[in-house]
Amino acid sequence: MNVQAPIRTALDVRDQFPAIAGWHYLDSAVSAQKPQPVIDAITRAYAQDYASVHRGVYQRSADMTLAYEAARARAGAFIGGAAEEVVFTRGATEAINLVAQVLPKEGRDRVLLSALEHHSNIVPWQLAGYTVDVVPLTGDGRIDLDAAERMISDQHRIVSFAHVSNVLGSILDASRAARVAHSKGALLLLDGCQAAPRLPVAVAAIGADFYAYSGHKLYGPTGIGVLWGRSELLDVMPPWQGGGAMIDQVSFERTTFMPPPQRFEAGTPHIVGGIGLAAAIDWVEGIGVERLHTHEAALVAETRTRLRELGFVTLYGPEESAGIVSFSVDGVHPHDVGTILDDAGVAIRAGHHCAQPLMELLGVPATCRASFAAHSDSSDIDALVEGLKKVKRIFG
Amino acid sequence: MNVQAPIRTALDVRDQFPAIAGWHYLDSAVSAQKPQPVIDAITRAYAQDYASVHRGVYQRSADMTLAYEAARARAGAFIGGAAEEVVFTRGATEAINLVAQVLPKEGRDRVLLSALEHHSNIVPWQLAGYTVDVVPLTGDGRIDLDAAERMISDQHRIVSFAHVSNVLGSILDASRAARVAHSKGALLLLDGCQAAPRLPVAVAAIGADFYAYSGHKLYGPTGIGVLWGRSELLDVMPPWQGGGAMIDQVSFERTTFMPPPQRFEAGTPHIVGGIGLAAAIDWVEGIGVERLHTHEAALVAETRTRLRELGFVTLYGPEESAGIVSFSVDGVHPHDVGTILDDAGVAIRAGHHCAQPLMELLGVPATCRASFAAHSDSSDIDALVEGLKKVKRIFG
Repeated sequence: MNVQAPIRTALDVRDQFPAIAGWHYLDSAVSAQKPQPVIDAITRAYAQDYASVHRGVYQRSADMTLAYEAARARAGAFIGGAAEEVVFTRGATEAINLVAQVLPKEGRDRVLLSALEHHSNIVPWQLAGYTVDVVPLTGDGRIDLDAAERMISDQHRIVSFAHVSNVLGSILDASRAARVAHSKGALLLLDGCQAAPRLPVAVAAIGADFYAYSGHKLYGPTGIGVLWGRSELLDVMPPWQGGGAMIDQVSFERTTFMPPPQRFEAGTPHIVGGIGLAAAIDWVEGIGVERLHTHEAALVAETRTRLRELGFVTLYGPEESAGIVSFSVDGVHPHDVGTILDDAGVAIRAGHHCAQPLMELLGVPATCRASFAAHSDSSDIDALVEGLKKVKRIFG
Repeated sequence: MNVQAPIRTALDVRDQFPAIAGWHYLDSAVSAQKPQPVIDAITRAYAQDYASVHRGVYQRSADMTLAYEAARARAGAFIGGAAEEVVFTRGATEAINLVAQVLPKEGRDRVLLSALEHHSNIVPWQLAGYTVDVVPLTGDGRIDLDAAERMISDQHRIVSFAHVSNVLGSILDASRAARVAHSKGALLLLDGCQAAPRLPVAVAAIGADFYAYSGHKLYGPTGIGVLWGRSELLDVMPPWQGGGAMIDQVSFERTTFMPPPQRFEAGTPHIVGGIGLAAAIDWVEGIGVERLHTHEAALVAETRTRLRELGFVTLYGPEESAGIVSFSVDGVHPHDVGTILDDAGVAIRAGHHCAQPLMELLGVPATCRASFAAHSDSSDIDALVEGLKKVKRIFG
């Protein structure tokens, strides 16, 4: 007999993730689990190397400063940028808020977003007083760049798009988005939260002006993110938050500021966050982002095929996506699906995914979302499928 | 013979700090070293319990949310505040920036600071557009509250003082500062970075309106800080940064926000920072802040006595201070003092301590600063004294 073996996908790094033993973690898009080398780097920074940075006259502080600044260079090089173009923030959300709040609005007070943006790429622009224009999506859930081309105007300061949708996994044609923005003299910011862990990124080749990503979604620690900005832009941007480390001279009459990136980093930084992020980038590059992308694309294809075979699941988004599959079980609220899957040892996310406008567009209050990472493999999909059959039996 | 034994001070917790073995770390005011239970809590959070918060439908995420929210309650109770009055920030600097940027300036556009403030309590007010009035110091380096009483007016929105000076260790009469502020309807913010690790703090007894402190100075992780604010104030303050977790409903037309503290916490929080901070507070309370204060006061007294005996050291600040002694070696630049001490295995800070206006007032470009913590003991002072004798020998 000639039985075809099912496709099995695995990178064999699962045992490097101590927190997921015996668990099917399919929620990496909300936050990634941490491989042991990242945990070790964090522990070592606190238990062996700890000192503050940029200030001490003693060797330990100088060493820590070198490590922290090396982390900055690492965070830049990872997406093809230079060290001095990297501002460390609390996360990608703060990175976008920073740009929204310090870019001048005079003469150009509109921002072009898309219908699939995360709240972190909507609300900062609203709070900063921009008028928001919304690019619609294609039928399969990608940002419609033909429409963007028609909508862009010389009143737009900036175009700000998700490089990869956190709900649908759809991948933006980022170079074309840059050309659209620049055609009318607008800037391009890419929200790279979901792209940085899943796709090779080269900001210069794209032609991006700003790129934001977060550490905790890239197998790194919480509380650290990256705003990359082109030097010519950062150079002319005024400071945002004030405090130590970002100043040149302070008097009560007049204060002058450091050049970027220090100008944008007030106060003692998240030192161990930077060091842990560098360890995470080392780990990711040890595998190779291209290989991660191929791995996750295979898991997405396998998932879509197997969920479709169930006959009671609706799939959202494009067939080809970066590590993320949104779906619903016909007649069952996503929240109930998530709860039953939890009992079966499978963690997915059920909700609006911080993208209420997209839910409105899809005509649902929420979706279920399975998202993959380096440690994901076909056994996770097996467990998801078995869990969904149980959902169907219970609600059938 | 009747030789009086020298006073020896120690809490016997030194072996709980793995990063200072064989090292005299007298720079705790810039950042505290971490006791093993804090390091273990951080490691466990990443290696065993990790999940994001506020979002997951699965048990692990619910558990992590409980731990994170328990940390919030812990951070509030530590200073006598309620959980819902605690906003987690990147650090104390961000906490002050938040207040400076969201308080309304209409009708009251002045802020009353003091001459000893850290840059983090000067520059945020300048950037937010406040007119700054500066309370002078008493002869021994405390904020002159008699002068403050004369200077306060109904044009002041807020009075913002260091609870403990990061340079001189001087302790503010915080209750009186509150009465001064409130006498003209102004608010009181206390920068508690140096006070929180060194003094028992009770915000209600003080009558404070806002209190800021940082985690990394309180034996906790980097990248986490606390803004405590009275509920009635937080309730009416508009949001600052936009993003996930801080919203109620988002549409491109209109967005509504969560009540505080979530309103002020956009994006995925520094989850493990919160958990590590709670572990640090547990550790500090295991010793008792009152006991820490007594311990550090004894070390300050011993240090001032022994440095004075050297005959070539100038001491700054009041005799009684909270764990911090600023000094200079006559005829030697503080930077050189710091470098030679480093060779002798003693870490102090030499510089302007992010308080350039105070340096101006003291008439020096910089001071040397020794600052203490729970692990400090008389052996650190012995090493400091021996190191300073070496400085004197080299620079004669």
